[in-house]
Amino acid sequence: MAIQSPASLMTPGPVPVPEFVREAMNRPIIPHRSDDFEQFYQAVLRSLKYLFQTEAGYVGTMASSGTGCVEAAMYSLFKTGDKVAVINNGKFSKRWVDFGGQLGFQVNEIISEWGKTPSEEAIIANAATCKGIVLTHCETSTGSCLDLESIAYNLRKQYPDILIVVDAITTVGAQALYLDTWDLDCVVAASQKALMMPAGLGIFAVSERARTHMRTSEKGNYLQIENYLEAASRSTYPFTPPLILLYALEAVLNNIYAKGLPHYWNRTKMSAKLFRSLLKEQNGTLFCESPADSLSVFQIPGLEVSVLKASWEREGFLVAGGQEKLSGKVLRVSHMGLCASPELIQSFWKAFKVNKEC
Amino acid sequence: MAIQSPASLMTPGPVPVPEFVREAMNRPIIPHRSDDFEQFYQAVLRSLKYLFQTEAGYVGTMASSGTGCVEAAMYSLFKTGDKVAVINNGKFSKRWVDFGGQLGFQVNEIISEWGKTPSEEAIIANAATCKGIVLTHCETSTGSCLDLESIAYNLRKQYPDILIVVDAITTVGAQALYLDTWDLDCVVAASQKALMMPAGLGIFAVSERARTHMRTSEKGNYLQIENYLEAASRSTYPFTPPLILLYALEAVLNNIYAKGLPHYWNRTKMSAKLFRSLLKEQNGTLFCESPADSLSVFQIPGLEVSVLKASWEREGFLVAGGQEKLSGKVLRVSHMGLCASPELIQSFWKAFKVNKEC
Repeated sequence: MAIQSPASLMTPGPVPVPEFVREAMNRPIIPHRSDDFEQFYQAVLRSLKYLFQTEAGYVGTMASSGTGCVEAAMYSLFKTGDKVAVINNGKFSKRWVDFGGQLGFQVNEIISEWGKTPSEEAIIANAATCKGIVLTHCETSTGSCLDLESIAYNLRKQYPDILIVVDAITTVGAQALYLDTWDLDCVVAASQKALMMPAGLGIFAVSERARTHMRTSEKGNYLQIENYLEAASRSTYPFTPPLILLYALEAVLNNIYAKGLPHYWNRTKMSAKLFRSLLKEQNGTLFCESPADSLSVFQIPGLEVSVLKASWEREGFLVAGGQEKLSGKVLRVSHMGLCASPELIQSFWKAFKVNKEC
Repeated sequence: MAIQSPASLMTPGPVPVPEFVREAMNRPIIPHRSDDFEQFYQAVLRSLKYLFQTEAGYVGTMASSGTGCVEAAMYSLFKTGDKVAVINNGKFSKRWVDFGGQLGFQVNEIISEWGKTPSEEAIIANAATCKGIVLTHCETSTGSCLDLESIAYNLRKQYPDILIVVDAITTVGAQALYLDTWDLDCVVAASQKALMMPAGLGIFAVSERARTHMRTSEKGNYLQIENYLEAASRSTYPFTPPLILLYALEAVLNNIYAKGLPHYWNRTKMSAKLFRSLLKEQNGTLFCESPADSLSVFQIPGLEVSVLKASWEREGFLVAGGQEKLSGKVLRVSHMGLCASPELIQSFWKAFKVNKEC
């Protein structure tokens, strides 16, 4: 089947894959049980420590979607019967509540309405006596962002040993996040968001505190992160690695290292700002109260989102609709990767005006 | 880091990725929550049924290595305490014994020496009172192949309800395998073998009998195959799909469909035959007693394998060494995908003669 290219893919994951990433993926296949692979992967792991802003922690990758990788983090850190607090304020954070239940944890659910974020007080109170907490930094279904720095600071002050697990799938590479300074325990990213790669690679960083728990775990198997970390200490992989996605990752990390993470964080922030100022000019409103920089989830009063979506599509801009209870109620636009271009954002809103005039 | 291309990658996975597959992967990224994706994936699923030779069964894919996908099959079909027979005659089949133990199954291990295959009588006897059995069609560490057709026939005759799970990672697309006719229950393949794709995609087919078990399972989560099958019934994906690997899969399946599976099966068989006749001319011997067509695991008496391997490498042929207890004792060469070329095999053995003369 012929895949038609949308002129501008602006969904908040997957995002377009830049040409330099595609070129990297076209490199020849090499055997993964080889010195060449080990030398290559060692360099990737080194760059990953920069991405997660960690010197003391451990990093790795696995062939999985972001969901698989967050489950791996939960599965690797907690066991049946463990009490784990989980925030639920949208489609994706709700998934961690469900997974926790299926994994046999005693889940302490911290619910807020979609579009809201639970108060820091509620989070701290609900984490009491829990072995760990699972936080979704940016809830991609609503665009809500947690103040992770502040929450982690207060959690740690209250509960020095609590394990802080962060779904940072839509924030790593797009917004500030520091594994060591914020004292987080397991942070999970995925390839198809701010890292501008195709989907299929889960990426994670783990603190010494979390690693200690993983080392003493009896569980093995595919989702056990310790397998990947132990192999990574020898610059190798426990199973067959998704080689071309690692090629892509290396290329992206080299780029991020060259320009510096703050450049990318700032670019996302400025793009979100520009997008939202133009949204406001059209009387549009953001759906959530604490918006992430990575994407805008919005509505324009008086205009049907399905009509709006189709009209932008005709102009060559592909955006995402709402999910589950937000279906037909909001649109979602990425500010990650190539979508952060100010020219693209200007053209996007120009197309809106054109449509209105028609 | 610059990845140097081995002139001819001949390891039994990963195998070289043909140009038409690379081109397919270069197609633009599309959102997976879209009609375009559903239309595309529906066609892929249709072709997968041909690959596994099933009309009655169900097929799907997941972002994982082959190992992750075999674990998914075991996790999805059996539960803690279930009695499951597992063959162990090499590095990979041993992994399923370990995984079964870690998943809490009562594993009935059917051991044979590396290079041997357990007798059909031993398999049948050991499967008594088991809910299921895990068979490794081709054990890639030794090159051994099971007579799957005969084993499955006799298992089914004795135990009509037994669940037959097959690690067919190194055989699907390379050797005959029929889900329906052989009455198998869950067959797992991986992308980087006879399907000539990069690693990172697990591929599976499931019988109605197995699906019934999966449907009543309480477990959810990433490795639950029912998630993928339920979504596939709507031509969609439960989590973010590894899109470019699906593009590659579509291209490969189109090719396989056009030439017919028997063409590929026969090509592998003829290549193995040619390779082994040239091996014999050099007094070389195969390591195992029932060799698969997919690869040759061999030694040449009087010649150090490390010296041989390095010498072929200098001539531009990259082969794999032995694993674990076979390290330093055998070499392993693929006959899958582009490695099935008779010209390549001729050049490979010509290079050996050249080396001997030096």
